[in-house]
Amino acid sequence: MSEDLKPTYVEKGQEFNRDMRYIPDRVTKDGRVPERGPVNGKLWPVEPGRYRLIAAKACPWATRAIIVRQLLGLEDVISLGTPGPTHDKRSWTFDLDPDGRDPVLGIERLQEAYFERYPDYPRGITVPAIVDVPTGQVVTNDFPWITHDLFFEWQDHHRDGAPDLWPEALREEMEQVMERVFTEVNNGVYRCGFAGSQESYDAAYDRLWKAMDWLEDRLADRRYLMGDTITEADVRLFTTLARFDAVYHGHFKCNRNKLTEMPNLWGYARDLHSIPAFGENTDFDQIKAHYYVVHSDINPSGIIPAGPDPAVWLEPHGRG
Amino acid sequence: MSEDLKPTYVEKGQEFNRDMRYIPDRVTKDGRVPERGPVNGKLWPVEPGRYRLIAAKACPWATRAIIVRQLLGLEDVISLGTPGPTHDKRSWTFDLDPDGRDPVLGIERLQEAYFERYPDYPRGITVPAIVDVPTGQVVTNDFPWITHDLFFEWQDHHRDGAPDLWPEALREEMEQVMERVFTEVNNGVYRCGFAGSQESYDAAYDRLWKAMDWLEDRLADRRYLMGDTITEADVRLFTTLARFDAVYHGHFKCNRNKLTEMPNLWGYARDLHSIPAFGENTDFDQIKAHYYVVHSDINPSGIIPAGPDPAVWLEPHGRG
Repeated sequence: MSEDLKPTYVEKGQEFNRDMRYIPDRVTKDGRVPERGPVNGKLWPVEPGRYRLIAAKACPWATRAIIVRQLLGLEDVISLGTPGPTHDKRSWTFDLDPDGRDPVLGIERLQEAYFERYPDYPRGITVPAIVDVPTGQVVTNDFPWITHDLFFEWQDHHRDGAPDLWPEALREEMEQVMERVFTEVNNGVYRCGFAGSQESYDAAYDRLWKAMDWLEDRLADRRYLMGDTITEADVRLFTTLARFDAVYHGHFKCNRNKLTEMPNLWGYARDLHSIPAFGENTDFDQIKAHYYVVHSDINPSGIIPAGPDPAVWLEPHGRG
Repeated sequence: MSEDLKPTYVEKGQEFNRDMRYIPDRVTKDGRVPERGPVNGKLWPVEPGRYRLIAAKACPWATRAIIVRQLLGLEDVISLGTPGPTHDKRSWTFDLDPDGRDPVLGIERLQEAYFERYPDYPRGITVPAIVDVPTGQVVTNDFPWITHDLFFEWQDHHRDGAPDLWPEALREEMEQVMERVFTEVNNGVYRCGFAGSQESYDAAYDRLWKAMDWLEDRLADRRYLMGDTITEADVRLFTTLARFDAVYHGHFKCNRNKLTEMPNLWGYARDLHSIPAFGENTDFDQIKAHYYVVHSDINPSGIIPAGPDPAVWLEPHGRG
């Protein structure tokens, strides 16, 4: 990658602040106004075969959508395109596909779908993104609402026996748990890794571990985050935990301890990993390649560590 | 630190090769020709109070000499100056001392003692170094022979009951063990961390862990590396183990597992740490500050990780 195409992540002297401005469109049943969540953009109708989920297995935010799609059995109605683990400043690329092009959209860079919609799109080209296949335009990249709507708006197309990822009785508590997991853990690891000063790193580290200890306690008497069944909250936490020892511990300096040193969280993570939708979409090689190559301002050599051995994920979790 | 004073450690495309050319002088009893080892420089006579050991607690090679000096009770005959953990391209500095000067030598940078001896000294300004106090000249920085000679040449000044760090009956096997520990472990972690290509890193990682597994096996039925008593071989291994989880695991990408995940090595390391000469000279704050700040080409942000918690070193080692 030439120097001027290398993205930078650490701003000297600054703490990390995630840009949370996304394309706010929603895909809803018949294009209805959804019961929950913001309507700040267009409403697109649910339609089997019309949309393509673009999601890199390297990316924790994108992998959430891959997992939810599979848990709900939506593979036949929403196709999946998977960019490779690395990208430059311009975009994620389809370098794992034949000829380096997404076989359905025919594009080399996800950027093309963003530009098809907004020729001057000024913000980051992120995954997950939902793309409207007929026009090749990106519909939305607003990741928390993508998985929300896969559950609530695509219910007519869920497989029989699909899990209830958003139990109504737990909704209020679940929102609080997910909010704390997002700000303190999902985003908390990035706040450590992209800190631009020792002070902002130290503060980020303390916030992260306070939340990790809270989760460790919470999982002492709950099999899953919200109790006896898997919910969206588990999907959101899992994709961060799956990256913890492979990337966040060393590369992001989240090194108070490894995930494997927290018995409840570690058992919980392996319990989820044993479910195909979670385990099959956890690709440690892509995960490591992504972080260690793309963040060249943190790891200038681009060398990808060989450890840790992912075989430990297959050990019995003991949480039946 | 200004950019042009930042040292670089990683040479792109290259494997790491340590420059082993040191000032080869020896300090021997009455300036005699030593029984063992090379005589490629001057011979200086043992003389209590004449020499000063300059050794940073951050540095594993230097800390060997600090530990051996204390184990043998040589504190009153060889004084100790300790540069701070960080340095620039030019030299280690005495920034921990009042006014930033070594109180005995009166110098700000160790470089000054090297230049007093060789005005155009062309190689790295390294610790440990023995300095002749009357002239302010560095005598030697040839670290393996410094600790060797503290034992063999300074015996008249050892404390009563000083350990036999070089048992004659074990010498041959000990040399083989120390050689393998040096090439594969002491230097092996640097070969991982300073690798300039993925290929050289991968090869270095395999070499390191093969040796770590050999040591784990060896320590299954031996309390110390050579058997029932502490030897120089233990000192040489310990200073690498002490840095393993704090630095080498993340910063040098030696991350197959933590030291704490290898029961024999971890118990052995804590066993040694419980001995004052080892534990008192293991300063995790200085260790972390050194590697994470000085190697700015590996860690450009200069941010020092907060973990891991060194309290685990005080847990019972169970190897009595």
